[in-house]
Amino acid sequence: MAKSKFEYVRLFETEDRCLPNSWIVVRVDGKGFHKFSTEHDYEKPNDMRALSLMNKAATSVMEEFKDICLAYGQSDEYSFVFRKETQVYSRRSAKLSTNVCSLFTSAFVYYWSEHFPSSKPLYPPVFDGRTVLYPSNQNIRDYLSWRQADCHINNLYNTTFWALILKAGLTAVEAEQKLKGTLSGDKNEILFSQFSINYNKEPEMLRKGTILVRRKVPVALPDGSGTREKSQIVQLHTDVIGDEFWNENNHLLTIS
Amino acid sequence: MAKSKFEYVRLFETEDRCLPNSWIVVRVDGKGFHKFSTEHDYEKPNDMRALSLMNKAATSVMEEFKDICLAYGQSDEYSFVFRKETQVYSRRSAKLSTNVCSLFTSAFVYYWSEHFPSSKPLYPPVFDGRTVLYPSNQNIRDYLSWRQADCHINNLYNTTFWALILKAGLTAVEAEQKLKGTLSGDKNEILFSQFSINYNKEPEMLRKGTILVRRKVPVALPDGSGTREKSQIVQLHTDVIGDEFWNENNHLLTIS
Amino acid sequence: MAKSKFEYVRLFETEDRCLPNSWIVVRVDGKGFHKFSTEHDYEKPNDMRALSLMNKAATSVMEEFKDICLAYGQSDEYSFVFRKETQVYSRRSAKLSTNVCSLFTSAFVYYWSEHFPSSKPLYPPVFDGRTVLYPSNQNIRDYLSWRQADCHINNLYNTTFWALILKAGLTAVEAEQKLKGTLSGDKNEILFSQFSINYNKEPEMLRKGTILVRRKVPVALPDGSGTREKSQIVQLHTDVIGDEFWNENNHLLTIS
Amino acid sequence: MAKSKFEYVRLFETEDRCLPNSWIVVRVDGKGFHKFSTEHDYEKPNDMRALSLMNKAATSVMEEFKDICLAYGQSDEYSFVFRKETQVYSRRSAKLSTNVCSLFTSAFVYYWSEHFPSSKPLYPPVFDGRTVLYPSNQNIRDYLSWRQADCHINNLYNTTFWALILKAGLTAVEAEQKLKGTLSGDKNEILFSQFSINYNKEPEMLRKGTILVRRKVPVALPDGSGTREKSQIVQLHTDVIGDEFWNENNHLLTIS
Repeated sequence: MAKSKFEYVRLFETEDRCLPNSWIVVRVDGKGFHKFSTEHDYEKPNDMRALSLMNKAATSVMEEFKDICLAYGQSDEYSFVFRKETQVYSRRSAKLSTNVCSLFTSAFVYYWSEHFPSSKPLYPPVFDGRTVLYPSNQNIRDYLSWRQADCHINNLYNTTFWALILKAGLTAVEAEQKLKGTLSGDKNEILFSQFSINYNKEPEMLRKGTILVRRKVPVALPDGSGTREKSQIVQLHTDVIGDEFWNENNHLLTIS
Repeated sequence: MAKSKFEYVRLFETEDRCLPNSWIVVRVDGKGFHKFSTEHDYEKPNDMRALSLMNKAATSVMEEFKDICLAYGQSDEYSFVFRKETQVYSRRSAKLSTNVCSLFTSAFVYYWSEHFPSSKPLYPPVFDGRTVLYPSNQNIRDYLSWRQADCHINNLYNTTFWALILKAGLTAVEAEQKLKGTLSGDKNEILFSQFSINYNKEPEMLRKGTILVRRKVPVALPDGSGTREKSQIVQLHTDVIGDEFWNENNHLLTIS
Repeated sequence: MAKSKFEYVRLFETEDRCLPNSWIVVRVDGKGFHKFSTEHDYEKPNDMRALSLMNKAATSVMEEFKDICLAYGQSDEYSFVFRKETQVYSRRSAKLSTNVCSLFTSAFVYYWSEHFPSSKPLYPPVFDGRTVLYPSNQNIRDYLSWRQADCHINNLYNTTFWALILKAGLTAVEAEQKLKGTLSGDKNEILFSQFSINYNKEPEMLRKGTILVRRKVPVALPDGSGTREKSQIVQLHTDVIGDEFWNENNHLLTIS
Repeated sequence: MAKSKFEYVRLFETEDRCLPNSWIVVRVDGKGFHKFSTEHDYEKPNDMRALSLMNKAATSVMEEFKDICLAYGQSDEYSFVFRKETQVYSRRSAKLSTNVCSLFTSAFVYYWSEHFPSSKPLYPPVFDGRTVLYPSNQNIRDYLSWRQADCHINNLYNTTFWALILKAGLTAVEAEQKLKGTLSGDKNEILFSQFSINYNKEPEMLRKGTILVRRKVPVALPDGSGTREKSQIVQLHTDVIGDEFWNENNHLLTIS
């Protein structure tokens, strides 16, 4: 049974190396999570257990791939930013997207029971993945701003929508009707006047999403003689659209 | 917070539609499964629980993607063959590989406890994925032959290697040394003369791997008045290198 | 002046090998040839000098690239079909399209004066090029049928359009108006009843375009002792949509 | 003759848009120009007529494509740099490379007789083309430095090689042997001591190649009342490896 006469089929695989010196983003996105969240009784408008589980899965990915310098998550999606110079998997696009996507999914199922009372979900959840390149620092910042602006817009909408349903007793159709054509200011006003909710006081994790970065933290030496620095993944829920975050974390945008 | 000024970043995503009228194969491969199998006490040379779990995960994928007409699995890998004309995800390569890979991984973790005594593995397992195109029927047959020949070669080696260790008490190094440069016939001879193992009597699932195809099976009608046909995914462990399988399943290679 | 410190920039070039076992078509297309043909007083509806020059340029391409088994030209375009198994330029897409396109353009300018009275055109003419893959014999036949049907449709239109202008004295706007919404039969009828032109008697080169293939032809031996076979590029103007051409030239579709 | 039933073949064409916000370089390269230059009696080591013709052809390309902000040529190659934001041909890679390559070739043949005594070359010359992306300003500068360093290395070698042949009467093999393993300093020394050639006094066009950029130049108004500014393509033969050129032309690297 000569394997060699069939091996020519390997030549049909294509090269898909990412352009060098460009930011590589792998974004994973829940497949059919509107339905999934309903079937698993996610709390509305936000389920802290689900968000914690997303953050846990993303942390697993970042622990595995040291060249991910930042990750950003909101709702049922997570974006992983590889540093520009990464050579992991020779920058092969499909290798990057499938490995990240598989590990994220695996960790999501694996750690489910730590966040939800049931030992596992009703069926295996799925996330798709994609690899996108961004040549400049401005581009990668704009990418993250795009996702955070999306988080803000959706969360303000959802917060108002579910307040109308859960607190004012509207049906989904009525709530949708009421919010049609409203601007951000209108929704803030509805929340404040009707439900005494100051949107800006809502938890930052919900309004800003979650940023994962590595930080050096001091760890006590075993012999009690002092501390040493260790790199750790920390969660932030700050604004990434303005300059402040980038000024404070300017190592992220410079070649390491 | 205008999302629109950042939305230009979507234009950086690339089109990756597969050439029409070509077979699309998505293959998933266990990442670091040599280590994973040792850490999870897989039986050697083959662990039937692990293979059943692989088959279960692959069946989940095939149930989800109706355009997969055949899947082939062995060891820690599975290949999914989409029919030539499939339009699923507009034939986008990354959508196909990440969705298949994520669902396979998810199902592997999800159904773990049905096949292994522990409720979950020691850590989240990972599979990578790739999409490969094959233009002709001969090419796709040769692809599957390549994987089945690989299964045969590896399994004959592993069966002999582990017999030498587990039954003859050799160390791994000694067994490796003994098998260096041997041909198939030599290994068959070692198995037969030293361990009374007729390799051709070994379970077909181990020697041939697993083929998943859809079959119409009769299902009893609820009122007991007879049966109706239903499509079901069945496991086969037959040869796909010769013509017989393809003659019996010639609908697979013709446009449906 | 160390070149080596800059050489990393070569890594930014991407692999673009064509899928194996697929027909490779390189099509060149005149850029702005509506304007070019007017400025160079092309005869209407067809200029035999221009078509001969196109055929000459295409023949130069086919003489250079032995793996082009067939070429098809009409109007200001030419398609070159490389045999499925070609390894020329390692099947790199850009190498194929730019080389074919450059040689075609070069020969077009080079041989201009053999076909047109002036020694050269008013300015350098340009052709763009593209590489397209076709997996099956049916696909490549349909590709050629598409171009030949396009030739027919355009030529019937143009023949009628210019008869109305040149023979019936209509303006371009009037002729266009008259032909709006007409079917093939209508145009045939106008040609016949108004201008006594039987469209089917028009030269085949105009109605069918030009097919270039290689043919073995007998060549006299220098010593007069007989003949030997030599491969030559011949022009045909036959139908490639039906089966006849392919039955007579079935070597084109089989692996050589 | 329904064209529509064949038109599906258009779907086999692939999208090949270049990543946004990246420098696009199209480089054309003479095919077999070692042979071509010998057959056309190019003067050695450099033929000023050939270089002028290259510059003329490149100028034609730059006149046509307004989004080419800089071109660099040496020997039988020319690189065209499109500004980062260009939307010409929707940034489609094959459109860019084939159009530039075709126009360059066309102009090379077209203007041949203005530079060489014969009205045309012995056969149609060919240039291949490729499109390469460079994300950062440093990358595009390094690309140009790479080509200019290549020019320097080759020209120093060729100048010495041909001096040894033409002035010292060595054979090609002897000259090659003598230069084997020599460093730049060695070649400078040979030129100076043996042939009284100060390499640094050689024409800059030969040592540095040719840079084409657009410059605003004053043009006399028809009524003699003064001048107006007009953009013109000018030839430079300066160093592009150091900072000076870029400081003086910093508009090239900033978004226009």
